[in-house]
Amino acid sequence: MKAPGRWLTGLVVLAIACAATAAEPLSSWNDGAAKQGIVTFVNAVTQKGGKDFVPEAERIAVFDNDGTLWSEQPIYVQFAFMFDQLRAAAPKHPEWQSNPAFKALVAQDKKALAEIGQKPVLELLATANSGMTVGEYDQSIRNWLKSARHPQLKRGYTELVYLPMQELLTYLRANGFKTFIVSGGSVEFMRPWAEQAYGIPPEQVIGSQQDVKFEMRDGKPVLTRAPKIAFVDDGPGKPVGIYRQLGRRPIAAFGNSDGDLQMLQVTAAGVGRRLLLLVHHDDAEREFAYDRQSHVGKLDKAWDEAKAGNWIVVSMKSDWKKVFAFQK
Amino acid sequence: MKAPGRWLTGLVVLAIACAATAAEPLSSWNDGAAKQGIVTFVNAVTQKGGKDFVPEAERIAVFDNDGTLWSEQPIYVQFAFMFDQLRAAAPKHPEWQSNPAFKALVAQDKKALAEIGQKPVLELLATANSGMTVGEYDQSIRNWLKSARHPQLKRGYTELVYLPMQELLTYLRANGFKTFIVSGGSVEFMRPWAEQAYGIPPEQVIGSQQDVKFEMRDGKPVLTRAPKIAFVDDGPGKPVGIYRQLGRRPIAAFGNSDGDLQMLQVTAAGVGRRLLLLVHHDDAEREFAYDRQSHVGKLDKAWDEAKAGNWIVVSMKSDWKKVFAFQK
Repeated sequence: MKAPGRWLTGLVVLAIACAATAAEPLSSWNDGAAKQGIVTFVNAVTQKGGKDFVPEAERIAVFDNDGTLWSEQPIYVQFAFMFDQLRAAAPKHPEWQSNPAFKALVAQDKKALAEIGQKPVLELLATANSGMTVGEYDQSIRNWLKSARHPQLKRGYTELVYLPMQELLTYLRANGFKTFIVSGGSVEFMRPWAEQAYGIPPEQVIGSQQDVKFEMRDGKPVLTRAPKIAFVDDGPGKPVGIYRQLGRRPIAAFGNSDGDLQMLQVTAAGVGRRLLLLVHHDDAEREFAYDRQSHVGKLDKAWDEAKAGNWIVVSMKSDWKKVFAFQK
Repeated sequence: MKAPGRWLTGLVVLAIACAATAAEPLSSWNDGAAKQGIVTFVNAVTQKGGKDFVPEAERIAVFDNDGTLWSEQPIYVQFAFMFDQLRAAAPKHPEWQSNPAFKALVAQDKKALAEIGQKPVLELLATANSGMTVGEYDQSIRNWLKSARHPQLKRGYTELVYLPMQELLTYLRANGFKTFIVSGGSVEFMRPWAEQAYGIPPEQVIGSQQDVKFEMRDGKPVLTRAPKIAFVDDGPGKPVGIYRQLGRRPIAAFGNSDGDLQMLQVTAAGVGRRLLLLVHHDDAEREFAYDRQSHVGKLDKAWDEAKAGNWIVVSMKSDWKKVFAFQK
């Protein structure tokens, strides 16, 4: 009976490992209404035979990226990347000097950028990177991420992901959920690092899209970038992006600003139990504090709707033991 | 030692079950170069430590739908659906009487339809179903599929999926592949039945897209269909659709016509071992026989490229024991 003995040892080790993981699935979350609400929801939809049970295939959870999974202040990380790219390309584009989006970027004028919206800024970059192959563009993003640092937090940007949200992603997947990002940012900007940071593979990243074209270049088939925005995945665009790419209604949605409102509304409108959650940035000490008045990540209408609809609102200050993994 | 005894029995049963499944993964395929080529490829990319090993996350396989996974003659199934929808809507659209796409559909003129291409036909339907919610449209497709029958094969359309290709999908997934549909047809038309027929969930269906818009209707958030085609996922559009939605280069691609050529080219152009396969319709008795001269599913340039590039070409007549599950 030597072999079964070994299996037994293996099973015991496995059982202990599972128990250890299961015991502390959200260890950076303080006990409180937010954590309790999440756990109660997950228990309800995974309980076989229970009235709220949802089959695994339909356990779809969608997450906004900027401000929900990582920092978005003082400007969206992608805007910082664009700014560097545009500054490098500017000498070839004298016409930009009178372009309102370019002027706002150069001046880092957050108010003007908020008023202009994402599309004109994305269009500027689309002009700048037009003609690049998708591979070259991907490489330019990876290169930038290697060296760029956050101006206040003094860290590489991919370190600025929220530890409690990483734990939440892991916890949901351990309970049979499929997790997706649904962001106003462009898919190309997230895919190179989303798998490592969040455990989310490229095919589960939904975002804004620049046009690309198939062509033969030097006898080889390549995709090149065209100077046109094909889709803006923000605000009312988010449920559209979910419909296009995912084709199912999520049962859980996570955001932090008015740009996530319609995604949460459509998620809420489905039949059955739902988890709807907003991250509230109220922690000026460990990260940033902003809401109704902010030009980036404005949380105003969605806040009112969260209160009216009894959605979970996470206080970063009181619900999270840590914000970033690097903090003690 | 009673409990380990029970586990042992369980393990033995499991081992036998696994062996039985593993022994006949492609049981409707005759032994021959096509089956051999598939198995050799799968063994190579799944062998840990082997020179062709590919990690699971990168084992992406893409399948054309019409003519590759199910029948496309005498006209694409979706065109048969559209024809019925348009006939019902025609009294409200007198302007269609002079529309070339509408005239070709009414006359079932395959040559004219092939020359016109997919977009004008999709645009007609887009006008017809504009304003419907996505839920209503989904229901109209499900209703139609319940009653519609193939004119020659006298079966419901969803029975017209190829059994050997269903086995191939299962075999690839059992070997850690993630399988996607990449079709010129619209996503909405495939999603309601792709999961049951192919084991492919809605989020792994890539196809042509009509514009949809978010709106509040009677106080409820809905997505409604706009009279505009947002994306045609055919020919050079296929690698673009893959880039947008999947964001990785596949390592295996399956098609049957020139509309799949660019998808296969882009798949072939990646680094590492590849599986490239065309289904050749040469079985007039059990299904249909057509290739270079056909107006639907024309296989001409892709045939030449398959021969030059040593891609696998499946003869439906000699490589498949059965075409459809209902055949003896």
